[in-house]
Amino acid sequence: MKNREILLVKRPDGAPTNEHFSIKEAAIPELSEGKVITRLLYVSVDPYMRGRMNEGKSYIEPFQLNEPIEGGAIAEVIQSQADGFQEGDIVTGSLPWREYTSVNADSLRKIDPALGPITTSLHILGMTGLTAYFGLMDIGQPQEGETVVVSGAAGAVGSTVVQLATIVGARVVGIAGSDEKVQLLQQLGADAVINYRTEDVSKALAEACPDGVDVYFDNVGGEISDAIYPLLNKFARIVQCGAISSYNKKNDQGPRIQQYLIKSSALIKGFTVGDYRERYPEGFQHLSKWLQEGKLTYEETITEGFENILQAFFDLFTGENVGKQLVKINEPSHKE
Amino acid sequence: MKNREILLVKRPDGAPTNEHFSIKEAAIPELSEGKVITRLLYVSVDPYMRGRMNEGKSYIEPFQLNEPIEGGAIAEVIQSQADGFQEGDIVTGSLPWREYTSVNADSLRKIDPALGPITTSLHILGMTGLTAYFGLMDIGQPQEGETVVVSGAAGAVGSTVVQLATIVGARVVGIAGSDEKVQLLQQLGADAVINYRTEDVSKALAEACPDGVDVYFDNVGGEISDAIYPLLNKFARIVQCGAISSYNKKNDQGPRIQQYLIKSSALIKGFTVGDYRERYPEGFQHLSKWLQEGKLTYEETITEGFENILQAFFDLFTGENVGKQLVKINEPSHKE
Repeated sequence: MKNREILLVKRPDGAPTNEHFSIKEAAIPELSEGKVITRLLYVSVDPYMRGRMNEGKSYIEPFQLNEPIEGGAIAEVIQSQADGFQEGDIVTGSLPWREYTSVNADSLRKIDPALGPITTSLHILGMTGLTAYFGLMDIGQPQEGETVVVSGAAGAVGSTVVQLATIVGARVVGIAGSDEKVQLLQQLGADAVINYRTEDVSKALAEACPDGVDVYFDNVGGEISDAIYPLLNKFARIVQCGAISSYNKKNDQGPRIQQYLIKSSALIKGFTVGDYRERYPEGFQHLSKWLQEGKLTYEETITEGFENILQAFFDLFTGENVGKQLVKINEPSHKE
Repeated sequence: MKNREILLVKRPDGAPTNEHFSIKEAAIPELSEGKVITRLLYVSVDPYMRGRMNEGKSYIEPFQLNEPIEGGAIAEVIQSQADGFQEGDIVTGSLPWREYTSVNADSLRKIDPALGPITTSLHILGMTGLTAYFGLMDIGQPQEGETVVVSGAAGAVGSTVVQLATIVGARVVGIAGSDEKVQLLQQLGADAVINYRTEDVSKALAEACPDGVDVYFDNVGGEISDAIYPLLNKFARIVQCGAISSYNKKNDQGPRIQQYLIKSSALIKGFTVGDYRERYPEGFQHLSKWLQEGKLTYEETITEGFENILQAFFDLFTGENVGKQLVKINEPSHKE
């Protein structure tokens, strides 16, 4: 058994390149009580990982120098000393970019292949789908005929929210940043889509929301959200899922919003998907049902090979990959 | 029967004075189906009325020129053609500053004198108390031992919130703007009080809230609220009752707050007391019980005479009246 891993060896200042990483031979992992040894099958490469490559505190803990990058992954258990896990189980969790790893079974979740293709556990039947589901259904609570606006609508979470809001019979307005994304959202069933790069967002929103806004699923914050607050209907619900436009700014300023909330008796609720950990089974059940019924779709791009993980990550920032970008490392030993 | 009323005849530019108003003889009111004729007993004079004297849209509709000022009042029914109302009933509602008025009974609420002195229906057993009760209990949901911060804590709503939070066993931190108010809040049971005019609010808050902030009852907004957001605990609740620091500013800017809400999975909910109309009886029941048990106290200042309403109103902006300012016009005909 040979083992390899990908380490962060230098913090990037601008775009990450090969010089910031090292692919090295790694030690053979050792098993102990409560642990399993996993063989890596798929990793998810995500823009948020760039933030973790910086030093200092962000909204998420930084990666350590000379330690492996880690992130969402799918793996196969090849040895187990943990209750409830056995050889051949397909699992998901946050794993290092390392072919074979010894890991606490507590941090893993077994995937049920009956629910859908295993890669879906890295997006629509994983944190992405659960984030969309609980944010929209628990906080947003859209009713049939209400208007739901989604910012960052073509993103992994956003495009799922658009579809879920359509399923409940809401009028759905998506906001995205390219004509290609606008087209994708129209295909997903959005009733109106706004390209914030080419349109006057306030004007376009007023036209797209003649009856005001009942639910706003916000991935973006900033000026796009500024344009929404004046349109809120009485008892509107804002799902504060992300605020990506603020993440890289220091002391980001904007109009104060408290008066809008009072005027419309509106609610804003921040959340992270982990808040709903105890209700994950409910979320998986609904999402997999809609997926099997063809009411939910997803896009994924799969690159092959451990040695191509870094290039797939770099391409996130330049290329126009469609949907979720994954890298396949190995086939499961026991194919279904 | 002679009748008098107070009209707005000129919009004040700065402080309101006698030149902006006229006390005139008014027509004798006429009764019709569904209406009652009321005799004015008490009026409430409030700072928010100044905003209604301006032209143009604010968060509340402006008073009309050459029409009477109107606001919270207590009156006695002297004639009735409305079901459920009869001579001698003591009622409250928004009434013109006019001694005798013909008014739709729908807009009035009968006061039960058994619940407390009738003047309390203009504060602690009225909109003030209900605003504090529903905002804190329904949105804030403070638990025993949690930390509740109240801005504008010495105001009519704020000082009620401080007492209610004490009743549920929370640790209560009040923010106010004078040493006299600080003292009042200490007497009402606040565990810590911050004078925002003389102290560094961020530093004082960090000291007063060593375990972070679980509930923030916000009457003020602006820089005081900016100092709170970084201290929010996981699942914190912000009751957005007012934002008085923004009301007179155009395009008021401040730090964007979405990231704080995400980080702490916190909630902000705006509201107005009318959102809880159907639950008023529950609110009155609790408030009057605590009042009778001596757990809730209030302060009121009562000036006498219809001709002194304006002066009492002017004095709000210069004097240091303690607690709720009322003007007594008449005694009820049938004293209890």
